[in-house]
Amino acid sequence: MRQAGRYLPAYRAVKQRVSFLELARSPDLACEVTLQPIDEFGFDAAILFSDILITLPGMGIEVEFPETGPKIGTPVRTAAEIAALAVPDPTTAVPFVMDTIRLLKAALASRGGVPLIGFAGAPLTMMTYAVEGGGSKEYAHTKSLLFAAPEEAHALLDKLARTCGAYLVAQIEAGADCVMLFDSWGGIVSPGDFREYPLRYAKRVIEHVRAARPGVPIIYFVNGCAPYLDDYASSGADVLGVDWRVGIDEVRRRVGDGVALQGNLDPGALFAPPAEIRARVADILGRAGDRGHIFNLGHGVMKETDPEHVRAMVTAVRELSAK
Amino acid sequence: MRQAGRYLPAYRAVKQRVSFLELARSPDLACEVTLQPIDEFGFDAAILFSDILITLPGMGIEVEFPETGPKIGTPVRTAAEIAALAVPDPTTAVPFVMDTIRLLKAALASRGGVPLIGFAGAPLTMMTYAVEGGGSKEYAHTKSLLFAAPEEAHALLDKLARTCGAYLVAQIEAGADCVMLFDSWGGIVSPGDFREYPLRYAKRVIEHVRAARPGVPIIYFVNGCAPYLDDYASSGADVLGVDWRVGIDEVRRRVGDGVALQGNLDPGALFAPPAEIRARVADILGRAGDRGHIFNLGHGVMKETDPEHVRAMVTAVRELSAK
Repeated sequence: MRQAGRYLPAYRAVKQRVSFLELARSPDLACEVTLQPIDEFGFDAAILFSDILITLPGMGIEVEFPETGPKIGTPVRTAAEIAALAVPDPTTAVPFVMDTIRLLKAALASRGGVPLIGFAGAPLTMMTYAVEGGGSKEYAHTKSLLFAAPEEAHALLDKLARTCGAYLVAQIEAGADCVMLFDSWGGIVSPGDFREYPLRYAKRVIEHVRAARPGVPIIYFVNGCAPYLDDYASSGADVLGVDWRVGIDEVRRRVGDGVALQGNLDPGALFAPPAEIRARVADILGRAGDRGHIFNLGHGVMKETDPEHVRAMVTAVRELSAK
Repeated sequence: MRQAGRYLPAYRAVKQRVSFLELARSPDLACEVTLQPIDEFGFDAAILFSDILITLPGMGIEVEFPETGPKIGTPVRTAAEIAALAVPDPTTAVPFVMDTIRLLKAALASRGGVPLIGFAGAPLTMMTYAVEGGGSKEYAHTKSLLFAAPEEAHALLDKLARTCGAYLVAQIEAGADCVMLFDSWGGIVSPGDFREYPLRYAKRVIEHVRAARPGVPIIYFVNGCAPYLDDYASSGADVLGVDWRVGIDEVRRRVGDGVALQGNLDPGALFAPPAEIRARVADILGRAGDRGHIFNLGHGVMKETDPEHVRAMVTAVRELSAK
């Protein structure tokens, strides 16, 4: 997560010349920064450079990306505002994403066919930004909508799920080998509300993608998944993302053997010396065992991270998992 | 949590005249706002009005409290900065807190002897503010200190734990009937790091208070406790706080019967209509069962909350737990 990003000097060099939105909307540049970490570290898969909120403007929700985090022009909070939202055709709303994917597929083919992961924000997560107007600490507006006006909340989540489903299918049509659904804020509710809101609409997206493009692996990631382990596997995804605040062995015990896991090193652990990084990689590989495990950070690389420590992690994963 | 606060018109009326720090440092006013929710809703216990960072200036860390959240003058990040910090005597560093407690005890005696809960920020939580300089999303500076300079991190946590222990004992000497240790950001680390950092230093505080004033109930609250349930009970506290993102029945299964639980309604659920609030209260009472349960929100009351919904919650708890 955040393979491409501000921790890389090559990324910062591109970012000095253009805004985040210009970068995300320019296939040449988005392709370039997606490839930077692949060329630098030789990761086993590339993940599209984009943003989880990139489809919001096509729905009728303006969004900007200053350094302090995304900002929504007019937050969506009323039944009328929700009714006015569109479910856009991604090929016309965000054609640059599909162009980026096509460029990437060609570029990755010449790099030994490294697979490409496409992604989207999950419905509840996108809802929090649309409703709060940006990031939030307590999600008061979101929870007010969920609990005081559940019909409107469901109407909004339904539109977000349809947007998200169509968007992921379009990414697969353009060449994505796998898709990942990010529920970065799926973890802000009680277990009962997790089933009612984030999980329900993530399932709809996953079912839609599965029906439209069977066989394409789907990853579902809930940041802060520990409280929901009894329900997590029912998402229908092939792979469950695991953040760093839970033991991946506990996750395996609770979700069973029918699903692969992706995770779960604390991104902050990359501040540790390489020997300690290696010890932590070994610990996670040991806990994950020998059933379907994709080593990954539990969340995005922090901008303060030393790229040499990322390299130390990759080396440790390769050497230790070869044993 | 946040019984006294911006959701109450009476609190906002006081707050219009003074800054947060003036309020917290004025025994008369702090006593007044502590009593407001007791007189309004008849809670079973009062909790001191103050802030978890109130002892930082006595350690040598300046802190301000604008509406956007606490701001530290100069963040503490180096060995030299940590070495320069004091472990203050709370009776001279924050005498106004003990004065507030004495006023409160007299005022609560005339209200049928409602018990008073004192509190402090737990060491890891205070460390995050001291090191980041305020609130944070990723805690990069904190994790850099924890993982790149663990000796310095331990030195800082040791000073924070000693400050916190002495402060809670002073509150008990002044009249607090019970003390609560808030680890609001204890939940930002992996289970192994939870044992190594937040839990280890919370235990030290709890042991210190226990030894100095045996028999006084101690509550330990980790916000986002779900990943740490196997270790949570080893804190030594009499009561474990439970946030809303986990089933309180699961917590009971995992921590055993030797400890009471406090929680765990989503503060956002107070946006729901009173009938739904009642249903959620009933659900939590049912899950908590008949062993040591203090009904509470899983975190603080949000400022957007309708006080009548707080009243509906209290009524539901009283009526349903009487059955």
